[in-house]
Amino acid sequence: MDRVCILRIGHRPARDARITTHVGLAARAFGADGMYLTTRDSGVVESITDVVRRWGGNFFIQVGVSWKKIIREWKEEGGFVVHLTMYGRPFTEKMEETRKKPKVLIIVGAEKVPGVLYGIADLNLSVTAQPHSEVSSLAVLLDHLFEGRELDRAYPDATMKITPWTSERPGD
Amino acid sequence: MDRVCILRIGHRPARDARITTHVGLAARAFGADGMYLTTRDSGVVESITDVVRRWGGNFFIQVGVSWKKIIREWKEEGGFVVHLTMYGRPFTEKMEETRKKPKVLIIVGAEKVPGVLYGIADLNLSVTAQPHSEVSSLAVLLDHLFEGRELDRAYPDATMKITPWTSERPGD
Repeated sequence: MDRVCILRIGHRPARDARITTHVGLAARAFGADGMYLTTRDSGVVESITDVVRRWGGNFFIQVGVSWKKIIREWKEEGGFVVHLTMYGRPFTEKMEETRKKPKVLIIVGAEKVPGVLYGIADLNLSVTAQPHSEVSSLAVLLDHLFEGRELDRAYPDATMKITPWTSERPGD
Repeated sequence: MDRVCILRIGHRPARDARITTHVGLAARAFGADGMYLTTRDSGVVESITDVVRRWGGNFFIQVGVSWKKIIREWKEEGGFVVHLTMYGRPFTEKMEETRKKPKVLIIVGAEKVPGVLYGIADLNLSVTAQPHSEVSSLAVLLDHLFEGRELDRAYPDATMKITPWTSERPGD
């Protein structure tokens, strides 16, 4: 995989701002290259851009896109389209196959997505067959996809960097 | 591990309702037994109780708890306390150690947590050294802790159950 991006659809500005921001930050922290958002939401853009500026890397966010156009463009360039959905097949079955693709687009819906997506996507994948969160689904999927290599990725251009709190209790 | 519970602190009802609900649902979906919430928030309780009723299992939610009391009780019963924080040590270093403990309490803070927690916790662990989401941190931590065994857990008492959408494109 040379490029892994997220396409977030169905975002409702007032209701979903924080969840979509968390989706974007999780995407970045777990190794994706950027996120397309169908809705224009300057608050989400600001939050994510601010993190990228301070914490480094090249994660992009592009808003107001047409999901049809993005999917078509990715497909024309040989991109592989994965739709994250509770109704998909268990994701672990398909990680090896997905990892071989040079360009992977991961679609993350909010409440409801157009039914046609199930047919357009190359794969419909679920992360557990239980209801939880698009933030947890995406993070766990990316962690498996990158096989944990993303967990200690360094960002040379970061102005902010965590130094772990080391004073563990005596004896540890 | 016989018992893994979440202690969510610093929840602000209006602002954090959806995120805390996602934390609870992710906790359940990724194998935890229940969640304590320091703030009383009937909306969060309803959302989570509703999922448990329809989707099965025994995940509990208890609100209005004192975090000091919960931690003290867990420690008195030999519980192991893990604090999820961006400022912690990389979590992967400590999964083997944590897995050996019979009772594990995972503290998930909202924006800010009392500084004293860093000293009270047996371990302060981070999931990547980047800012993202308590939902993604918790899910990825639990997925590693349970080594993926939670991913296809069945709930015999569920009234709702997903049948994966199987009509993949011809040739797959």
